[in-house]
Amino acid sequence: MLSVTILGNNSAVPAFDRHPTSQVVTLDGNNYLVDCGEGTQIQMIKYKIRRGKISHIFISHLHGDHYFGLVGLITSFGLLSHQQDLHVFGPSPLQEIIELQLKVAKTVLPFNLYFHTINQEGLLVEDSKIEVRCFKTNHRIECYGFAFREKKKPRKIDLEKVIAAGIPQSFYKKLEDGTDYTTKEDVVIKNEMVTIEAPKGKSYVFCADTKYDESLLTHVNEADMIYHETTYPDHLKDRAIERFHSTSSQAALLAKKGRVKKLLIGHFSSKYHDLTEFETEARSVFENTEVALEGVTYQV
Amino acid sequence: MLSVTILGNNSAVPAFDRHPTSQVVTLDGNNYLVDCGEGTQIQMIKYKIRRGKISHIFISHLHGDHYFGLVGLITSFGLLSHQQDLHVFGPSPLQEIIELQLKVAKTVLPFNLYFHTINQEGLLVEDSKIEVRCFKTNHRIECYGFAFREKKKPRKIDLEKVIAAGIPQSFYKKLEDGTDYTTKEDVVIKNEMVTIEAPKGKSYVFCADTKYDESLLTHVNEADMIYHETTYPDHLKDRAIERFHSTSSQAALLAKKGRVKKLLIGHFSSKYHDLTEFETEARSVFENTEVALEGVTYQV
Repeated sequence: MLSVTILGNNSAVPAFDRHPTSQVVTLDGNNYLVDCGEGTQIQMIKYKIRRGKISHIFISHLHGDHYFGLVGLITSFGLLSHQQDLHVFGPSPLQEIIELQLKVAKTVLPFNLYFHTINQEGLLVEDSKIEVRCFKTNHRIECYGFAFREKKKPRKIDLEKVIAAGIPQSFYKKLEDGTDYTTKEDVVIKNEMVTIEAPKGKSYVFCADTKYDESLLTHVNEADMIYHETTYPDHLKDRAIERFHSTSSQAALLAKKGRVKKLLIGHFSSKYHDLTEFETEARSVFENTEVALEGVTYQV
Repeated sequence: MLSVTILGNNSAVPAFDRHPTSQVVTLDGNNYLVDCGEGTQIQMIKYKIRRGKISHIFISHLHGDHYFGLVGLITSFGLLSHQQDLHVFGPSPLQEIIELQLKVAKTVLPFNLYFHTINQEGLLVEDSKIEVRCFKTNHRIECYGFAFREKKKPRKIDLEKVIAAGIPQSFYKKLEDGTDYTTKEDVVIKNEMVTIEAPKGKSYVFCADTKYDESLLTHVNEADMIYHETTYPDHLKDRAIERFHSTSSQAALLAKKGRVKKLLIGHFSSKYHDLTEFETEARSVFENTEVALEGVTYQV
């Protein structure tokens, strides 16, 4: 089951007990951290995120509210005797910034830390369960969104039908992959007669910080859920453009044009305590919108 | 009135809602920040510290739990249109680390940021009200403690006696400085006959991270209050020595030998939820000990 837990939903300056950007994408017990604003490790303790299950961290861009918590998290992983390899993806010079601070403190990590510098769109991670791709967004500095796509599961064998058709167990793996079975008498048993198609893998797209930009549509295309920033309500549209951010209606318009199933909005300006305005404006354009709340897990 | 407000009292890894080291020394409305662990700016909001009143930040050493919150605080000062000059004191390469991160984010600060690299003991700040000195402590990496001393106030004029003695107003400033007055008839009026001595300025000494080291005694000497770390309770004395930290009894012994008036203990290991053991052990050596609690202001 693909899900996302929000650790921070605020923009640059912390306010009203809202924290800078960070969220945990979870699939089958594995945690993928997306952005790591200051205080992320404290939010993880508060919301009981299993830190030991984090193997990949994706940093969208090098504005502080998206990564100032990373060096502290890595340092704490060291002190907590984290063992698993840790892969960190982000734009240059993230590696230099983190390594300088670790070196100065004479930190010796008990795990392997691998940096992967992002400098173009493409595939970042692929295994049997998930695929993670990055794509460029339209922000003041180099910035990337991340698309998580659950791999389609193998076809499910209809055991009763398979036995009735006399298909040997040694062929079951091929049946799961969709192959037809041919009997000794040269009779072809079509795969779909004896297997059931697995549901399509779910997809979640984190659109990072960005001004409204329809070039993102190819990446959010029909996703099950996307997270889009709404730093400002609609009447501050000019300010949004100037600062390379988006308004509530713009986020919702992208969700609508991208034919996604659900929209999460976040990265709220520190000037707003009450978030109703953001929600109302977005829902007037795209109904299935939710305000991303810290500590809440959203099933994709 | 000299006071200190605790923002973080924990050692390296945050735990039990305790945060890494940071405290605010306040004198007559001016705030001096000592260390700035991750999340300090969030603690400041929680405990209503007037951020605009911070003009000086002192960083003891470059272990992350003492400075990872600094770049975020400076960035937020920028976004919040802080105007006042900001002076940051700390060991090398603090300036390089912070400036690299500000540059990458294309941060433009609306105030003057001055770095002062500490590489030896001595006077850091002196004005009419306060004097701040740094001194070396005995830690794994280069580390400094900070001694705050309130300047002695001018002598107070006993107006009735001054008028009776016929001393002109133009001489009042000199009287405050302790000068005797000589009349036209060459009669010397001793200063102490017409003025009252101001009470001695208070002193507060932050001993940073350190193993037990009696060379610190010259710096804590008879201070009104000191803060000394007690990362471990006494039965972990060997671990304390190995990690260049102190135990509760050691902190208390330094307070006792230094003939200070009051001891605050902090920088507790993340393994301990209950802090009673630290308090009991320290008090058995030096009675006027208090556990430094986050959000609490201690009058010096």
